[in-house]
Amino acid sequence: MRRPTIADIAERVGVSKGAVSFALNGRPGVGEATRARILQVAKEMNWRPHSAARALGGARAEAVGLVIARPASTLGVEPFFAQLLSGLQAGLSAQSVALHLLIVEDVEAETEVYREWASAHRVDGFVMVDLKVRDPRIEVLEDLGVPAVVLGGPGGHGNLSSVWADDRGAMLSVVDYLAALGHRRMAHVAGLPAFLHTQRRTRALRDRAGRLDLEEAVSVHTDFSDSEGAAATRALLSRSRRPTAIVYDSDVMALAGLGVAGEMGVKVPDELSIVAFDDSVLTRIAHPAISALSRDTFAFGKQFAEVMLEVIAEPGLRRDVETATPRLVVRESTAPPRAWQDD
Amino acid sequence: MRRPTIADIAERVGVSKGAVSFALNGRPGVGEATRARILQVAKEMNWRPHSAARALGGARAEAVGLVIARPASTLGVEPFFAQLLSGLQAGLSAQSVALHLLIVEDVEAETEVYREWASAHRVDGFVMVDLKVRDPRIEVLEDLGVPAVVLGGPGGHGNLSSVWADDRGAMLSVVDYLAALGHRRMAHVAGLPAFLHTQRRTRALRDRAGRLDLEEAVSVHTDFSDSEGAAATRALLSRSRRPTAIVYDSDVMALAGLGVAGEMGVKVPDELSIVAFDDSVLTRIAHPAISALSRDTFAFGKQFAEVMLEVIAEPGLRRDVETATPRLVVRESTAPPRAWQDD
Repeated sequence: MRRPTIADIAERVGVSKGAVSFALNGRPGVGEATRARILQVAKEMNWRPHSAARALGGARAEAVGLVIARPASTLGVEPFFAQLLSGLQAGLSAQSVALHLLIVEDVEAETEVYREWASAHRVDGFVMVDLKVRDPRIEVLEDLGVPAVVLGGPGGHGNLSSVWADDRGAMLSVVDYLAALGHRRMAHVAGLPAFLHTQRRTRALRDRAGRLDLEEAVSVHTDFSDSEGAAATRALLSRSRRPTAIVYDSDVMALAGLGVAGEMGVKVPDELSIVAFDDSVLTRIAHPAISALSRDTFAFGKQFAEVMLEVIAEPGLRRDVETATPRLVVRESTAPPRAWQDD
Repeated sequence: MRRPTIADIAERVGVSKGAVSFALNGRPGVGEATRARILQVAKEMNWRPHSAARALGGARAEAVGLVIARPASTLGVEPFFAQLLSGLQAGLSAQSVALHLLIVEDVEAETEVYREWASAHRVDGFVMVDLKVRDPRIEVLEDLGVPAVVLGGPGGHGNLSSVWADDRGAMLSVVDYLAALGHRRMAHVAGLPAFLHTQRRTRALRDRAGRLDLEEAVSVHTDFSDSEGAAATRALLSRSRRPTAIVYDSDVMALAGLGVAGEMGVKVPDELSIVAFDDSVLTRIAHPAISALSRDTFAFGKQFAEVMLEVIAEPGLRRDVETATPRLVVRESTAPPRAWQDD
């Protein structure tokens, strides 16, 4: 499924690469009959005029494509994503490579855009985010044969390169810490079950809960929005036996959860400990400040850009890069549960 | 300085547009001599192969360029910019138009990129942000003759289209409100003096201070960073006669200022009122919550995208669009000054 090059056409027709280049670019230097034959073969091989620049050797689109199947309104809200994009842009811009961004309705539209941009050679490679369990986009990108790097893993990204952090390890560190504080009933306000990282975190909690013999460890799925984060928190805190600690899959949801605790008169951290995956200014200026799994997201984005540029520079290269595991930064929202203190 | 089209070349050579199209695209259908003549004229007119798609009538890059001369690390931090970009992307994506983003070192590099992208036809138009006083980029974009829309105004954007909000009116509404509360000594922690909107806000404060006969109204310039916002606040609160109200040019700086007030034991709002230009989750979750000039930034970005798409669809169209003036939303950080209450 590799796009045909000038060399492929030259071989098929039995002429020099120069002759093909002249013919395809409408320059003099090749006879009319040969020109017609070259154009005919180019058409049969599905060679597209737009990829001329690249086929001619080395000239690039100087852009990396990022197609996002999320509601646009949520993009400016999530500090993690904004920081990641900044780091990505910083890394690419250092090499004067632009980021070619489009928001689409769903994954089907996303793969459609991959095909279009690849054939029109709008970009030199793709960044794929929001890796899902058995993600159909992986095969599409593999078939297109364009450089692509997946944000997410380990595993689940086929033959494509990937950059990831250890979500399982991060979740285990939180569960261990909360258990050490004395928490026996924990909840996890998770993202969409289709996301690979959501699944990893959910499994890590369940596995560790078994080993630690916790009384309760439940994961509740949401769409990552603050409203669903709030609703999940209301449901959890309305139970006759409440969890004493809740881990949220994002800082935005943790903040929403903190708001619900306030509205229901549940004291944080005395009656409820709160931990956020993803750290940002939101967790730091919240009142009380929220304990969070923290990493340098800007640096993470920059590192991703470097891998992307390597893969573009050397087609066929496959990188599988683990980045630093997010570390738990403890602030004011976590403490031993009051019931436990009273024992 | 308009890019030559197929029609221009056809006119010069004295052949049909179809003949020019055949010749430039290396397709049969035109004699060798005519082809050579067409290619010669195309070369003289500086016609570039990359703009073929467009010259052929209607085919577009399906992308809008945004070149930003700001440190990448600040982009993920400022909620206003993140929201604006989200709205812009939402508006463009609705028409399947991508945003082609690059971060550069300075304005010179920015104009260089404008030239490159225009000649290689990487984009159908440009979004220009951070409008400055006597901005050199305006002339560059005018000369390139590509569709462009400036974020900023009114005025100062030459013959280019622009989308803007009334910064002067917004600042006047804040000064009037603070004066009505009894404040006589106000400060303005402003952005870079080169920015047109900074200049407008600074002038509005000075003009109104004169009319209201305020005791003091000073604008201090910063680079918009939280560290310079904090430093400016420290300097203002270290004066023997402090301002009783400070207006910050961004939510990020207002938050930094609130932190400094806390560190220096200056009570907000009793001893110091704080107002932020730009509203976001930061001002809402701050403690106390910060009064701010608020607007729907996502909708603003979307409106901008619509104007951009209109200008691309109808080259030569000039739009000058005023959007809703930011409205003061009063929260917990503004009150009558204590000294005044004690009178």
